[in-house]
Amino acid sequence: MDVEEIKLMKTTPSSALGSCRIKIKPEHYDQIISFLQAKEIGMFFYTGGNDSMDTVAQLSKYAKEQKIEGIQFIGVPKTIDNDLFEIDHTPGFGSCSKFVVSTISEMNRDAIVYDKKTVTIIEVMGRDTGWIAASTGLAADEHSCPDLIYTPERGFSLEKFEADVKKTFETKDSCLVIVSEGVKLPNGEFVADTGNAVVDSFGHKKMGGAHQVLNDYISNKLDVTVRSTEFGIQQRCSITHASATDIEEAYTLGKKALEYALEGQTGVMSSIKRVEGSDYAVKYEAVDVQKVANNVKYVPEDFFLDGGYKLSQKGIEYFRPLIQGDVVVPKVNGVPRFSTLSPKTKGRFIK
Amino acid sequence: MDVEEIKLMKTTPSSALGSCRIKIKPEHYDQIISFLQAKEIGMFFYTGGNDSMDTVAQLSKYAKEQKIEGIQFIGVPKTIDNDLFEIDHTPGFGSCSKFVVSTISEMNRDAIVYDKKTVTIIEVMGRDTGWIAASTGLAADEHSCPDLIYTPERGFSLEKFEADVKKTFETKDSCLVIVSEGVKLPNGEFVADTGNAVVDSFGHKKMGGAHQVLNDYISNKLDVTVRSTEFGIQQRCSITHASATDIEEAYTLGKKALEYALEGQTGVMSSIKRVEGSDYAVKYEAVDVQKVANNVKYVPEDFFLDGGYKLSQKGIEYFRPLIQGDVVVPKVNGVPRFSTLSPKTKGRFIK
Repeated sequence: MDVEEIKLMKTTPSSALGSCRIKIKPEHYDQIISFLQAKEIGMFFYTGGNDSMDTVAQLSKYAKEQKIEGIQFIGVPKTIDNDLFEIDHTPGFGSCSKFVVSTISEMNRDAIVYDKKTVTIIEVMGRDTGWIAASTGLAADEHSCPDLIYTPERGFSLEKFEADVKKTFETKDSCLVIVSEGVKLPNGEFVADTGNAVVDSFGHKKMGGAHQVLNDYISNKLDVTVRSTEFGIQQRCSITHASATDIEEAYTLGKKALEYALEGQTGVMSSIKRVEGSDYAVKYEAVDVQKVANNVKYVPEDFFLDGGYKLSQKGIEYFRPLIQGDVVVPKVNGVPRFSTLSPKTKGRFIK
Repeated sequence: MDVEEIKLMKTTPSSALGSCRIKIKPEHYDQIISFLQAKEIGMFFYTGGNDSMDTVAQLSKYAKEQKIEGIQFIGVPKTIDNDLFEIDHTPGFGSCSKFVVSTISEMNRDAIVYDKKTVTIIEVMGRDTGWIAASTGLAADEHSCPDLIYTPERGFSLEKFEADVKKTFETKDSCLVIVSEGVKLPNGEFVADTGNAVVDSFGHKKMGGAHQVLNDYISNKLDVTVRSTEFGIQQRCSITHASATDIEEAYTLGKKALEYALEGQTGVMSSIKRVEGSDYAVKYEAVDVQKVANNVKYVPEDFFLDGGYKLSQKGIEYFRPLIQGDVVVPKVNGVPRFSTLSPKTKGRFIK
C-alpha cells in the first residue's frame, strides 16, 4: 500500500475498510475462527462502538473457553455516540461535537437576522445518550445558543418544551433548540415514533424524526416562525470540522491496539483515560473488553447547571478539550483530496 | 464601531445589518425618500439579489423622474443563487458552492462504505436556477460523485430519474444525486409541490421538498437503500467552508460600491467581470442596475458534456476559480469567534 495514501486517511472521512452492520451470533464463532486459522491470521482487530466491542468480547471469551490458541482479539473503539464504558471519550466524538458546535453557531447568526420570533430546532445523533447534544452547550458562551438542549437522560415532554420556548421568548426573539434523536416521552415512547402519522405521497407511513414532531407541535401552539432540520450523516463524516485532538487520539488508539497485540494481549480494548489535573492530558491503556460490551455510559446530570440547559464547569471541562485544534484538509483544485484507499466491499466473510 | 469587530465580519456568517423580505411598491417611494432627506442621508446602499436590485432600480428611476437631488442609490450584489445579469458571478455563490462540493465529497465516502446498493439524494438551493447544483460537478474528478445532477434549466422527469439511477448501478453500487430545489416536471409543476400529499401528525399538508419526492419515488421502484436530505440554511451560512476568493471579492465589491458613490454615480450596481485569459482574473465596474433588475441568468447547457451530468471544460473553467482558498475562522476555546456586531432589528422603517 502507498504510504502517502495511508497517511491521507487521517483527513479522509468514513472507513477505508468498509463497514458491516452484523450482530454476531454464537453460530458464527466457529466459522470466523476457522476462517482466521485457514488464512493464518493471528490478530483480529475490530473497530466500532458497543456492538463491535460485544463482538470482540464474545469471540475472545469463546476462544478462551475452547482453548483456541494463536488468535488474539482486540477492540479499537470508534463511535461518535461517546457512550462506551472504560474509556474517557471515544474517537469520533470530539470531531462530531466540533461539527455541531460550529454549525449551530453559524446557523444561529442566520436565525437572529430576521425581525420576527423564530424557533430553530436541530436534531443530533447519539442513540440512547445525549453526549452530542449536551456538548453543544460549549457554543453558549460565545453565541448565547443553544437555548434548549433535550437529551434522552433527562426526560422530555412536549408541555415542558412549549413552556421552555415561551420562557426563552421573554428575553430574546430567537430560540435555538437541540434535540437528541433518542429523546422519549414520559410514557417511554420515542418522540420520533410519535410522528409516524405522517403519510407520504404513496400512502406509506414515515418517521419524520424527533425534530419534525417538535416542529409540528410548536407550530400548532405558537404563532412564530419554526424551522427544523437534522444533520444526518454530515455529523459523522465532516472532516472539514474535525478536531485535531480527536484525530491524533484516534490514530494513537489504533497504534496502541497493535502494540497491545504485539505484547500478546487478547480480549482487550485500546482505551484512553484522562489524567487528573488542571490541564488536559491523557494516558493510553488496555482495558478488559468484557467490561465495555453491552454497557451504555450516560451524560451525568451535574454536567448541567441547576437543572437547566447551560453547562456546569464540570461539563465544560469535560467537553472543551475534545474539540480543540483545526485540521487542514489537503485539496486539489479546491476539492478535498481524500485517500484513494477505499472500501473493498466484495468477498466479505459473513453475509 | 470597533474596527476589530468590523474586520471580524469577513469571517462572520449572515448579515450584521439585519434582513428584510419586503417587495418594494410605488407607495413606498415617497416614504423612503422623505425619510432619507429628513435624516440627511445622501447615499443609499442596498445589498441582495434580484429583488434587492429591483428596489435600487425603482428608487433610482423614481428619483430621476421626480428630479430629486442629493440621494444616490447603489446596489451591492449578494446572493448564493448566482442568477444576476451584468455580473460574472455573485458574492456568496463561491462559498456556497465550496460548502456543497466539500460536503458531498465527505458524504460520498460514507455512502460507498456499505456492501449494498445505495441512492443518496441531496437537495440544494438556487431558486429557479441550477448554478449551485451544476457546480457540484467539480467534485466528480476527485470523487466520482455526484452521479446525477438535476437543474431547473434542463428539465426533469421521474421516469428519466429512474432510468438514470438504473444506468448508474450498472457500473457502481452507490448513486449520489444532486437536485435543485426548483426542478419542475414536464408539465411545469414544481417537483417539490407534487409531494404535498404528505400529511403531518396534526392533519396538515406539508411540502417535503424535491428530495423527498425523489426519495419516495425511487424507494417504491427499486429495492435499494435510499437516503435523502437537504442542506437548508447551512449552505448559505457555513463560514467554515467559505471560499477565500469569494470573501475577498465580496469585500472589494462593497468597497467599490462606496467608491462609485463618492464619484457621484447613482442607479448602478457594483459588479465584477472576468478578464479573458488562461488564468483567473477579474475587474470591477459599475453597471446599470436597470439591466440587472428582474432578469434571471441561467446555467448554459454547454457547461455540461454531451447532455450528461459531467461538467464540460467550459463549465469547469467557470466554476473552479470561485471555490479556491480556505478561510481561517478565529476561535475561542474551539468555538468560532464571530463579530459582536449583530442585527439591530428594532426601529425598521417599513413594516
